[in-house]
Amino acid sequence: MMTNAWVQTLQLSLPSLKDNTADADRLIQALKSRLGSDDIAVDLDLLKTLPDVLRNAEYHIRCVLYKDRGGWGISDILPAEDPAPVLGMAVDLGTTRVVLRLVDLSDGRPLAESSFDNPQLAVGPDILTRIHHADSTEGQGHLQGLIVDGLNREMAALCASRGFAATDVFLMAIAGNTAMTHLFMGLNPCWIIREPYIPVVNRPGTHRASQLGLCVNPCARVFVFPNIGSYFGGDLIAGILYSGLNQLDETAILVDVGTNAEVVLGNKNWMIACAGAAGPALEGGAARMGMMAGPGVIDRVAINPDTLQMDIHTIDNLPPVGICGSGLIDLAAQLFLCGMLDIRGKLVASACGSRLKEIEGMKHLVVVEGKDSAAGRDLSISQADIDSLIRSKAAMYTILETLTASVGMAPRDLTRFYVAGTFGSFINPVSAISIGMIPDLELNCYETLGNSSLGGAARILESSELFEEVDRIQSSITYLELNVNQDFMNRFSAAKFLPHTDPSLFPSVRKKVIG
Amino acid sequence: MMTNAWVQTLQLSLPSLKDNTADADRLIQALKSRLGSDDIAVDLDLLKTLPDVLRNAEYHIRCVLYKDRGGWGISDILPAEDPAPVLGMAVDLGTTRVVLRLVDLSDGRPLAESSFDNPQLAVGPDILTRIHHADSTEGQGHLQGLIVDGLNREMAALCASRGFAATDVFLMAIAGNTAMTHLFMGLNPCWIIREPYIPVVNRPGTHRASQLGLCVNPCARVFVFPNIGSYFGGDLIAGILYSGLNQLDETAILVDVGTNAEVVLGNKNWMIACAGAAGPALEGGAARMGMMAGPGVIDRVAINPDTLQMDIHTIDNLPPVGICGSGLIDLAAQLFLCGMLDIRGKLVASACGSRLKEIEGMKHLVVVEGKDSAAGRDLSISQADIDSLIRSKAAMYTILETLTASVGMAPRDLTRFYVAGTFGSFINPVSAISIGMIPDLELNCYETLGNSSLGGAARILESSELFEEVDRIQSSITYLELNVNQDFMNRFSAAKFLPHTDPSLFPSVRKKVIG
Repeated sequence: MMTNAWVQTLQLSLPSLKDNTADADRLIQALKSRLGSDDIAVDLDLLKTLPDVLRNAEYHIRCVLYKDRGGWGISDILPAEDPAPVLGMAVDLGTTRVVLRLVDLSDGRPLAESSFDNPQLAVGPDILTRIHHADSTEGQGHLQGLIVDGLNREMAALCASRGFAATDVFLMAIAGNTAMTHLFMGLNPCWIIREPYIPVVNRPGTHRASQLGLCVNPCARVFVFPNIGSYFGGDLIAGILYSGLNQLDETAILVDVGTNAEVVLGNKNWMIACAGAAGPALEGGAARMGMMAGPGVIDRVAINPDTLQMDIHTIDNLPPVGICGSGLIDLAAQLFLCGMLDIRGKLVASACGSRLKEIEGMKHLVVVEGKDSAAGRDLSISQADIDSLIRSKAAMYTILETLTASVGMAPRDLTRFYVAGTFGSFINPVSAISIGMIPDLELNCYETLGNSSLGGAARILESSELFEEVDRIQSSITYLELNVNQDFMNRFSAAKFLPHTDPSLFPSVRKKVIG
Repeated sequence: MMTNAWVQTLQLSLPSLKDNTADADRLIQALKSRLGSDDIAVDLDLLKTLPDVLRNAEYHIRCVLYKDRGGWGISDILPAEDPAPVLGMAVDLGTTRVVLRLVDLSDGRPLAESSFDNPQLAVGPDILTRIHHADSTEGQGHLQGLIVDGLNREMAALCASRGFAATDVFLMAIAGNTAMTHLFMGLNPCWIIREPYIPVVNRPGTHRASQLGLCVNPCARVFVFPNIGSYFGGDLIAGILYSGLNQLDETAILVDVGTNAEVVLGNKNWMIACAGAAGPALEGGAARMGMMAGPGVIDRVAINPDTLQMDIHTIDNLPPVGICGSGLIDLAAQLFLCGMLDIRGKLVASACGSRLKEIEGMKHLVVVEGKDSAAGRDLSISQADIDSLIRSKAAMYTILETLTASVGMAPRDLTRFYVAGTFGSFINPVSAISIGMIPDLELNCYETLGNSSLGGAARILESSELFEEVDRIQSSITYLELNVNQDFMNRFSAAKFLPHTDPSLFPSVRKKVIG
């Protein structure tokens, strides 16, 4: 059980002629013995109100604390009897979606959660477009304004939904990728995408919320998760913290599946990480019928091996409008298992039958006929879409293979495999194994973490003891630069088959393939 | 030789694919190995400009540093080739007079000095009046505005006098008494004068100059000297640092003579301090003809023992207008030695002759006849003025006796006696011994320090290594509350004689007394 020290109730000794210690120093001394730390900061604003606050409360107070660079700071002092709420806000600062969790800072208890589309989507859906937009000071300010305003609106609404005010929030923990973190903090992101890919800062640390334009309590502090480079951000560090990988005896792997695949392998003693482009196919963004998860989107597919009848599931059971990444992985796996895709990932005309159509010289497989789709048009997937998915899954597997090989392991040696991120949670591991995207482990080795970025951010607010763990994680990770060398290319080529050129790596799949 | 680390020139390693450390973290790593410290802060404002500054300078830079709570911080980064000056400003924040010293922060070299009357004099000459004025928020803001505006004007002029701008100042060190420090920082001073006399803060620490309203470099920091209570302020702590008492093997004493006498006794292992009212007579403010040092003010007096002729010296050799504290001590000593004052401090009619006048029933001694004075009126000193001086000198001696007695010493056991403060520098120790104000030590035991408050503040700017020494001094002082008990009163009564009821304590004086 971790302890939470963000809010401390104290009865200070009363001033007397025998103890004329100043108000601030009296407070610090009491906190020192409570926290066991010598390094406690009080800022000028607090000094200005301190004498009255202490005397009005008869030196019986609640201290709201924060941490910065290993030391403590006092954000505010409230009378111990004052029932005012003291809240924390965890934020997953996603490129696409931003998720907030409101917690009670005195015990870490979650109170409410909400999310909103990253308003920077108006500038560009991908981070690259936004970084180019930030080339000018105006553009950079514009992007920062969008996300900060969005956060302020959403925080106010989230607090209000539980009868609180945003000014009740005293501590925030924000986890995002390196580029989003820069755009949010108003730091120039342009060197992130230029070789040799240098962020402005690896450990942004703790700042005043007001300095970042955040409308919470005027004395609130914001902790921003550190990164280990342009392509391994604070969202991943938060994910590691959330998974607990950093405290395991056994060696485990954590994978954030997406357009970029970020992977960390390790245990409590060491961690090694890498990131590489897996391609947009995994998130469903590349296929013609591909789209983000949403109402009517196909998220699960089964094919009856006898009738080859497709059994599709859509979100909210609405008429299908397209397919998301997890649906696409399901679909490819099912097509392969029942022989409609061969081991090279090519559509097999004989097996596909009337579902196969040729459009503009390209093979297409009709997944949903027009009569059943929402728009009344066929929903089909092309050979090119499948090729793209196969490149993505091959990239994913190659990254896993390269990282494990770097420490003398193979993917199948793993006994614990964390799937981080919201998207990863929707992937059916059986399907992902079937196409050879992830190693053929026992299913109970796989653990989906959901929004591990938000979860990690919230952990900090739940337990002040974990604060230093974040920097420890950051500094104990060795980042492996994925140089695309011949070795990598050979592995990649071998992984472009279904499930792999070496089927012995996927024994569970071999048993299921028809014929 | 102390080293000065406030300005560090560094060539950072250049970013590469093999070392993608972020700009800020690269900088911190380089500083870590230079400074041997793990705790180096970079603030958000600096992060915003850092990437361009580093690249434009090809990572060859000068870092301007500060310290706070044992850690380092980076105020600003300049290209190494940029010849821009980096200055520091030491301030003695006196109740009456404020003195500034401009230094080159890169080597600690003093560049210029100036002083101005504390503009808070317009509200009241004494600190008590000002503290009452600060009872309202408006009054407090008014007093803070007066001193901050005054500092800004004077700093701009002082910098300009050497061809610099106030924005060239990156680090300030400010030493003042506890009340002045509070008024300057905008902290409520009202509890300082109410029992049990509690300051808002003992260790104000380091703050942004801009937060204090100071118009120097926007990223400049201000270190404010700590106090050990309402009556032993940062000016004294600075004085101890300047004297070096805190590093002595032998036990020494440091005395700041004034309306309040502040005394510290100790060596490198321990220090004990007290403060007590000595009365305004010592500063010349109480006598009818008394005044602050200035043109035409009598600062030295000699009396020919044979002719009883007075030989007076005035500042700038102008016709006399009054007498200052050091002149008054000289006068009393000389009157005593030639028999015009008896051992009870009473004017002896037979010895004073025609100089003695009776005005409104009170004995007066004419020091300067009307024909010789600037105003054409007699300058005379009354028996009441002398009584007041004797009470003050007795208080001073009693404080010294009480403090030394508390550690089993007597005043005459001392071998080193530092006289701190500008006023103390003007006192003739022979005269002060003659009236029994200070112990009868060899003259070479006495060392006047001049403006030790300014000197101590400047030391910090000269040598970053001394920074931690300030807190060490502050925490190693035991403050002795001078309870006016029977013991104290007995000592005080004995000290009200010239030089003392026990003349064996002052053997050098006994020899000189006429008759």
